[in-house]
Amino acid sequence: MKEQYSTSRIQWSGLSWRLRVHQHTLKDGRVLERAVIEHPGSVVIVPMLEDQILFVSQYRLALDSTILELPAGNRGWDEDWLSSAKRELREETGYAAQNWLALGEIWLAPGLTNELMKIYCATDLQWNPLPADDDEEIELKPLPFDEAQAMALNGQLPDAKSIVALLRVKTHFSPDL
Amino acid sequence: MKEQYSTSRIQWSGLSWRLRVHQHTLKDGRVLERAVIEHPGSVVIVPMLEDQILFVSQYRLALDSTILELPAGNRGWDEDWLSSAKRELREETGYAAQNWLALGEIWLAPGLTNELMKIYCATDLQWNPLPADDDEEIELKPLPFDEAQAMALNGQLPDAKSIVALLRVKTHFSPDL
Repeated sequence: MKEQYSTSRIQWSGLSWRLRVHQHTLKDGRVLERAVIEHPGSVVIVPMLEDQILFVSQYRLALDSTILELPAGNRGWDEDWLSSAKRELREETGYAAQNWLALGEIWLAPGLTNELMKIYCATDLQWNPLPADDDEEIELKPLPFDEAQAMALNGQLPDAKSIVALLRVKTHFSPDL
Repeated sequence: MKEQYSTSRIQWSGLSWRLRVHQHTLKDGRVLERAVIEHPGSVVIVPMLEDQILFVSQYRLALDSTILELPAGNRGWDEDWLSSAKRELREETGYAAQNWLALGEIWLAPGLTNELMKIYCATDLQWNPLPADDDEEIELKPLPFDEAQAMALNGQLPDAKSIVALLRVKTHFSPDL
């Protein structure tokens, strides 16, 4: 962009993330505003219990509806990534996991936010719940592994992070596909 | 959430989307603020030119870096979805397509925004550029089909929408995988 100078300000700041607005003054005097979400990052977990994957059905304020997705949540600004994943799994499913496998990371919406999401597969689960956040409404929805993978491919599961995480798990365990 | 009442306000409004802040007053008097991005939706395109897929390398303000991704962009609030896809393809790659195949839709970040993204595969391309948006810095990066698909699986391509769109194309053309 051929700007003469740029400034920025925090327009709103919440518990998890903040909105920064950049003002770019162009050489012809026009001012462009561009906003980005500054985000601490997040985690998504593929919890495997025998031949099932533990999904959650969760109310999402942004959609004003309940959708099926893998357990996920925001990292605290100073929180260790794996600690976030362990906490979110217990809060959202009630299970703790003995085995954690890191499966890389993705940008969710780089036109909007610097949110980086790390993907984990969690196995060897034991019932060991943490209280859920008091603004979350979550219900556990186990699905057979093969059914979940089929839903990721055929479009029945419309949540991008869940699709990518299931794909990473499938690729890890069956690298020839 | 056990709120007594809720109000909301538009905290910031830009060319493409706006930030709405919800204030929930709980029964114990506490006030929780939760913000969501109200978004018109977006499109991502898998443009196929012979045995290549046309990617773009694009500067992203939110990341302050340049990343490899499929052509994509926001829909105008009143714009037809397919028209958005046709416009974005010409702006970002210079090509227009004769054939458009709709491959479903995804939620990109439902904890943050109601942005719905529709996925298209574009074939029969002809050179027919539109001027790019004046705040975009984009470079065309064709990649062989098989190499792109491998990068979607092995984590070399970290952009979630591009991974899902490539998976949908692969599933459409090779449904037994």
